[in-house]
Amino acid sequence: MRDLRHHREALALNTATLGHRSPIEAVIDKCAAHGFGAIAPWRRDLEGRRLADVAARIRDRGLTVTGYCRSTYFTHASHAERQAAIDDNARAIDEAAAIGAASFVLVVGGVPDGMHDIAAARQQAIDGVGALLERARTVGVALAIEPIHPMGAAGRSVVNTLAQALDWCDALDPERQGGLGLMVDAYHVWWDPDLEAGIARACRDGRVLGYHVSDWLRDTRDLVTDRGMMGDGVIHLRRIRGLLEAAGYRGPVEVEIFSATDWWVRPEDEVLEFCMSRLLDVC
Amino acid sequence: MRDLRHHREALALNTATLGHRSPIEAVIDKCAAHGFGAIAPWRRDLEGRRLADVAARIRDRGLTVTGYCRSTYFTHASHAERQAAIDDNARAIDEAAAIGAASFVLVVGGVPDGMHDIAAARQQAIDGVGALLERARTVGVALAIEPIHPMGAAGRSVVNTLAQALDWCDALDPERQGGLGLMVDAYHVWWDPDLEAGIARACRDGRVLGYHVSDWLRDTRDLVTDRGMMGDGVIHLRRIRGLLEAAGYRGPVEVEIFSATDWWVRPEDEVLEFCMSRLLDVC
Repeated sequence: MRDLRHHREALALNTATLGHRSPIEAVIDKCAAHGFGAIAPWRRDLEGRRLADVAARIRDRGLTVTGYCRSTYFTHASHAERQAAIDDNARAIDEAAAIGAASFVLVVGGVPDGMHDIAAARQQAIDGVGALLERARTVGVALAIEPIHPMGAAGRSVVNTLAQALDWCDALDPERQGGLGLMVDAYHVWWDPDLEAGIARACRDGRVLGYHVSDWLRDTRDLVTDRGMMGDGVIHLRRIRGLLEAAGYRGPVEVEIFSATDWWVRPEDEVLEFCMSRLLDVC
Repeated sequence: MRDLRHHREALALNTATLGHRSPIEAVIDKCAAHGFGAIAPWRRDLEGRRLADVAARIRDRGLTVTGYCRSTYFTHASHAERQAAIDDNARAIDEAAAIGAASFVLVVGGVPDGMHDIAAARQQAIDGVGALLERARTVGVALAIEPIHPMGAAGRSVVNTLAQALDWCDALDPERQGGLGLMVDAYHVWWDPDLEAGIARACRDGRVLGYHVSDWLRDTRDLVTDRGMMGDGVIHLRRIRGLLEAAGYRGPVEVEIFSATDWWVRPEDEVLEFCMSRLLDVC
């Protein structure tokens, strides 16, 4: 396994970890000052900005951009809403290219209001991703499907395991022409009895576009915004990175913590210090 | 598919649905009065009772007993705690036999305090179930491993999919001598991309010991006690029963709703009326 102390380029911060409180310019500066080598901004961070200015600032601070977060949901009851989501995601892909992101992160959406058919919602999501693949390839931004923990199947995403996401990749890109893969998040996949096989398959197929870390708290109180700092929960994070690296992964290790009542209300510098020390000590 | 209107014997109530507010005697009476044909009591319902009296009352009201709920967790950091859990579950198996239960429901436990190794916890659970199998066979009560939604992997159960639970059954009972199977709960498995294959395999192997229904609410606010009434959420319940029955299942359809802030605070008769009408209309 890599000693991350010697791989600053792999130490990444997802801006959601700070709760989107400060302007992106300040977040970029702090990210670099705390020793990170990469950043993953959200669309909301860039509203009202000239993308070229943000891209220049990121470059100037010695950072790269991992994944641009994230897609509008593809799953909707009506065709018009589904097409609007595709159009919006196409614009986001262009933004991702403009800031130099390696990938655009896809959280595909859950079971739409008024539907009781997860199978139909899954087909909507596959169709939506497929509709964007050529554009993504054209502008050089890979589409990173993120399998989401099954507790998000109704509200956030109907793709819920590594194996399922890899099946989607195989269906949409059978010739492995590139531009399509997975965002692996320890929080979403740690419980999977087939984790080892899924990681091996994903790496063998060249599909792993990034790796997110946080921790699962024993007394989780919210289905979205109660993630823990690495080391504060039950996930064997070093084992998961070990599986990834044994299978050939050499990409970023990115901290992404949604924590409405804890980390999002702590001072940003404190949060960043914890992120860095825990990245180095337990991930 | 069966028309459940003509199968009173298949309409089952899990007593947790009423929130354990009334004495078990009253719950038995109401259950029969509302047209159910079977009941699943919890250990806590029977504290301080003569089991023979409870068993007689259940029989007298024309009810059968589906599953007795439920195991003490098998997963603990120390050997002594694990042995104590096995001993306690052995006593529960005898209680299950005394009230005439077809099965004893196993919720195996999560990742123990102080551990970060879900693989080790899984082995503890397998060992614990294995230690009880002969006793269960001797007294004629089947062990029903219940795969629990992955959001319970840390706190409640490290067995999280049908396929995983079936693998455990194969490991513990390779000759299919009986006495070991699964409790399938729609709430826990509805999201599974391999649901259809898992149900087909489980039925083919003769492993399905029961089927629980409730619903997944779109705005779920708690990881344990915020289940919905059938029809109020996103689960395609009729499809899941269809898969089970197409694969040969003819057992009970049992309502089990944990709902601290809604159904557990409504009048019991109102809850039972909803359960029965939704069982017949949407399940």
